[in-house]
Amino acid sequence: MTTRTISAVAPTTFRPPRIPQVEVSGFWGRHVDAVADRTVAILYDRCLAAGMFDQIDPARPVPEMRLPFHRRSNGVHDTVTAQMFWDSDVAKVIEAGAYALYRRPNADTEAKMDGIIDMFARLQQPDGYCNSWYIRMQPGKRWTNLRDCHELYCAGHLIEAAVAYHQATGKRKLLDVMCRYADHIAATFGPGPDQKAGYCGHEEIELALVRLARETGEQRYMELARFFVDARGQQPHYFDIEARARGEDPLDYVHHTPEYTQAHLPVRQQTKVVGHAVRAMYLYSGMADIAAEYADDSLTKALEVLWDDLTGKQMYVTGGIGSSAKNEGFTQHYDLPNDTAYAETCASVGLVFWASRMLGRRPDRRYADILEQALYNGALAGLSADGSRFFYENPLESHGDHHRWNWHRCPCCPPNIARLVASVGTYMYGVADNSIAVHLYGDSVARLEVASTPVTLTQNTEYPWDGAIRLTVNLAQPTRFTLSLRIPAWCDAPSVSVGGEAIAVDVAENLGYLDIEREWRDGDVVALTLPMHLISRQANPKVRQDIGRIALSRGPLIYCLEEADNGNQLNAITIGRKLGETSTAPIRDLHGAISVSIPALREDTSGWNGQLYRADIPMQRTATARFVPYHLWDNRGPGEMLVWVRAQS
Amino acid sequence: MTTRTISAVAPTTFRPPRIPQVEVSGFWGRHVDAVADRTVAILYDRCLAAGMFDQIDPARPVPEMRLPFHRRSNGVHDTVTAQMFWDSDVAKVIEAGAYALYRRPNADTEAKMDGIIDMFARLQQPDGYCNSWYIRMQPGKRWTNLRDCHELYCAGHLIEAAVAYHQATGKRKLLDVMCRYADHIAATFGPGPDQKAGYCGHEEIELALVRLARETGEQRYMELARFFVDARGQQPHYFDIEARARGEDPLDYVHHTPEYTQAHLPVRQQTKVVGHAVRAMYLYSGMADIAAEYADDSLTKALEVLWDDLTGKQMYVTGGIGSSAKNEGFTQHYDLPNDTAYAETCASVGLVFWASRMLGRRPDRRYADILEQALYNGALAGLSADGSRFFYENPLESHGDHHRWNWHRCPCCPPNIARLVASVGTYMYGVADNSIAVHLYGDSVARLEVASTPVTLTQNTEYPWDGAIRLTVNLAQPTRFTLSLRIPAWCDAPSVSVGGEAIAVDVAENLGYLDIEREWRDGDVVALTLPMHLISRQANPKVRQDIGRIALSRGPLIYCLEEADNGNQLNAITIGRKLGETSTAPIRDLHGAISVSIPALREDTSGWNGQLYRADIPMQRTATARFVPYHLWDNRGPGEMLVWVRAQS
Repeated sequence: MTTRTISAVAPTTFRPPRIPQVEVSGFWGRHVDAVADRTVAILYDRCLAAGMFDQIDPARPVPEMRLPFHRRSNGVHDTVTAQMFWDSDVAKVIEAGAYALYRRPNADTEAKMDGIIDMFARLQQPDGYCNSWYIRMQPGKRWTNLRDCHELYCAGHLIEAAVAYHQATGKRKLLDVMCRYADHIAATFGPGPDQKAGYCGHEEIELALVRLARETGEQRYMELARFFVDARGQQPHYFDIEARARGEDPLDYVHHTPEYTQAHLPVRQQTKVVGHAVRAMYLYSGMADIAAEYADDSLTKALEVLWDDLTGKQMYVTGGIGSSAKNEGFTQHYDLPNDTAYAETCASVGLVFWASRMLGRRPDRRYADILEQALYNGALAGLSADGSRFFYENPLESHGDHHRWNWHRCPCCPPNIARLVASVGTYMYGVADNSIAVHLYGDSVARLEVASTPVTLTQNTEYPWDGAIRLTVNLAQPTRFTLSLRIPAWCDAPSVSVGGEAIAVDVAENLGYLDIEREWRDGDVVALTLPMHLISRQANPKVRQDIGRIALSRGPLIYCLEEADNGNQLNAITIGRKLGETSTAPIRDLHGAISVSIPALREDTSGWNGQLYRADIPMQRTATARFVPYHLWDNRGPGEMLVWVRAQS
Repeated sequence: MTTRTISAVAPTTFRPPRIPQVEVSGFWGRHVDAVADRTVAILYDRCLAAGMFDQIDPARPVPEMRLPFHRRSNGVHDTVTAQMFWDSDVAKVIEAGAYALYRRPNADTEAKMDGIIDMFARLQQPDGYCNSWYIRMQPGKRWTNLRDCHELYCAGHLIEAAVAYHQATGKRKLLDVMCRYADHIAATFGPGPDQKAGYCGHEEIELALVRLARETGEQRYMELARFFVDARGQQPHYFDIEARARGEDPLDYVHHTPEYTQAHLPVRQQTKVVGHAVRAMYLYSGMADIAAEYADDSLTKALEVLWDDLTGKQMYVTGGIGSSAKNEGFTQHYDLPNDTAYAETCASVGLVFWASRMLGRRPDRRYADILEQALYNGALAGLSADGSRFFYENPLESHGDHHRWNWHRCPCCPPNIARLVASVGTYMYGVADNSIAVHLYGDSVARLEVASTPVTLTQNTEYPWDGAIRLTVNLAQPTRFTLSLRIPAWCDAPSVSVGGEAIAVDVAENLGYLDIEREWRDGDVVALTLPMHLISRQANPKVRQDIGRIALSRGPLIYCLEEADNGNQLNAITIGRKLGETSTAPIRDLHGAISVSIPALREDTSGWNGQLYRADIPMQRTATARFVPYHLWDNRGPGEMLVWVRAQS
């Protein structure tokens, strides 16, 4: 039923470092500190206030429903409520908490996390099953609606939490609970005659099982992940079989199409990125893991097609994806409205996951550049600078009425961006047997192992505000390995020296990475300079919403106009396609963040005398437009925001 | 409770001619023929198929519900269904049918209309009450929910139908039924201690009662109309009293705010056009009628403020109004999205109603220009050129997926645009004791009476395709009266001659009308020339959606680009703010409609090689942009459409 093509070449697998291996400072250090110092406590309190622990903890009475069941468009009540996936929300809080604990010990946080873990330990059934909704709220219905009810999705997030908590604290309790649960799942699902050939409507279990396999060394979890990937979209369709078993018509489906769950075709036959954006990203992440672990060229090939489809036809310049609120996902090619953009924070987080996993087979800036773009823009915007407030949707234009909120009744994004930020170090590197790939730059210390030798890599840099990076190699004895440095496509004049000696930077033939293979000695210094200047980006004219407009970037950061700096009516501003003289200045109270000012014209909005339409040609006056990094918008009071600014033609 | 200011100046009231007084040919003649020959039969068949007559006719068994009740956003089922206002849909079909019968006798149509009228006659209760929903579907609940259930609205449309059918056929049956119903309503509602101080959530009864009073000469109907206008929005609030009487919390209201029904304030205190657009237009129409009939300056003053608010801050250049589908109505000032514009056909029809009634006190092109703009563009677009298909929403930009449909489960627009088109002659003139105002131009013959003398006015013209109008006056004996000719604001070089002798056209001091007061003799000819050329219109820069864009008009018509003429990706086209050389040509198969072509540039969409964003400055090539009248779009196969075209800056 599944045709796999396994690579004939001896495979190299690049794996991310474990969380404790990379300690970040500088730009990311401040963000991780905000998560550790503030966000995790907020997340815990909000879960408590929402009543999540009342549902999870079997020591408490079974609570009343807190969230209503969804409704279908025809008015029929559905069987799904956001409360079904509370386990996953709590799991992401544990994961973020784990990374916070690694950042710095905190007895209060650790006690809270241990307390939640104890609840799950108490909750677990003798056969290993562990889902609070089906054990306490709807007993007897487990595994009856994989399509809609997030059951394996919750398991996946708990598994990720267990791995993270084990890595950060060394404590095995949740890991053991989740191994037992994973064993139960492995017994329940699979190709065997007594097993279910099912998979989850919301992908997540696949990539989680890969993490569990890597953490425990148990290949059976990897096999189970591969099973879920391979089973998806096969005929006869599991979701149809399952619906009929519930006495329902498979066609009576609230989301109308199996594209919503990327279950419309076997995964190797999929060519267009469709449906719910977060689900898509999690699926492709799991597929990329399996492709790397099994050197599965057939999966890689499908992923490359999907990657081109997403990044060539369906991605905002911020790395935001999924333009429509209706399906929380994808629509038509080139349909990228700015003010109504859904661009869920979780979806950009998911894109970071996928991009990083596409680097599992080889360094390739095609993926790493997008990883960086989504991380610094579409994802990071989801968290306020102080770590206390959250965006769910990330539009590229606001009329002044879009702001971060404290919580959401579907609270998936806050812990998701928190866990991403707090684990950002793991995305900076890929480590193979004889190679270290540097995917991201940032002030940090990484303790890695290559060619069976411990190596410490220290980055000293003001990145992303400045492109000078000093990379120091420390190791016990001289060792030969390859250091692969990403040269971002946005940089037109990179320069590199090793030990003070310049080396040529020609990466066209090497997928955008500069490979420095040598015998490295303790104290070797690589100096990398990635000059940053303001770049104007045009969208493909098929994107009707951006035509005649320019977006500005500097280094990895997309910039925007805010009312705080430019007054309102931001669409009255036009800038030249050839940018005028640029000046930069730090933004007061935003930790060294750099604003950029350029000459502009501004439509004269006076003298209309109450008219709505007139024939006179409008007047423009000269002005200065001040741009700030997109991820920092809405940190300085409410107002309009605009990424795609009108160009003077 | 109500402060009325009655004009001290002896009032002049301009009233519209009755339908049979004006016979149109040329442009409007073809449209009226389409309604008479095709639309009326379609409307009747669709009402039949929907089951409306089963509900109305008491000779048939009470039918099952056909349309579901609405749902509230919180999932609670509401008490409203579109089926409640089927009487109004059928009434509008009778009204359109009446005008069609006047256009040309048709035994089949007349038999069908008589048949429906017989149903209502059978339906009427001994006390005069006559509403099919509350008599047959929900007996015992009459007058318990004026806010939501369209009860007086249905009465209003039936009254309009009765007046129209009487005018067209001379038959009194429906008129008598409706007079009895109006008498019952007058007994039920009013300021008396045993009367209800209520009014309808969907305005319509007010303007209908004015029509009934004018047709029957019964002033009590005028008084009742005035009562409904005055009672609206007074405290204690009738809708709250009524909700509590139903055992409901007044705050538990599906539309959240009394602004939805323009009942948030007494009408004289209202300053912003709010809520459901059609309701607002019908209210203001009724207010304007009452202002004219009673020379009520306090009402006129309120209406002038509301008029400026609508036309200065909330109206599309097409005369479309009500930008949001959510409330089928108004949002913030200057919020006029083009591709998601709701701009319901009925709302532009309602704007024609309101504008025409603002002319009741004196000719003023401030109103007549908008009347023309809404009629020829936002309203007329609602009907296909052959009279068989209908738009509900009228966006100003389509990505190719918006098309006229055959029917709608809330079928208000098809009969509404049909009755407007079929009665267009009545909007052309306003007749006062010693004056005839010519508001609209079009090939036609009008048989009016002024200064107690019958006067025939014949317009010979190709308007709106050409601005030459020859107006011939025929009358039995020389008579002195004033002929007031509207000089549209869009025309920059009007010229007029009477009997071949040029007269000065200076209308700045006379509200845009040229008054020709003289003793008119049989055969006098007025030659009016309104030169038409392509005009580029800019929107106030506060309309963020139109900034940097131009809309083109020629005469009263707004033009648009269609894919049929220009290929797809219409936003790749830019035109100069100073238009280049213009050429006109008839559109094949569209009855002499004129297209306009101008030089343009077109963004080169090739050479992107799968890229979504890039830094290169885009290339443009020269092109020709061909524009067609907005009201004719989607008559020649599917495709993109665009009104606001990008301007070269």
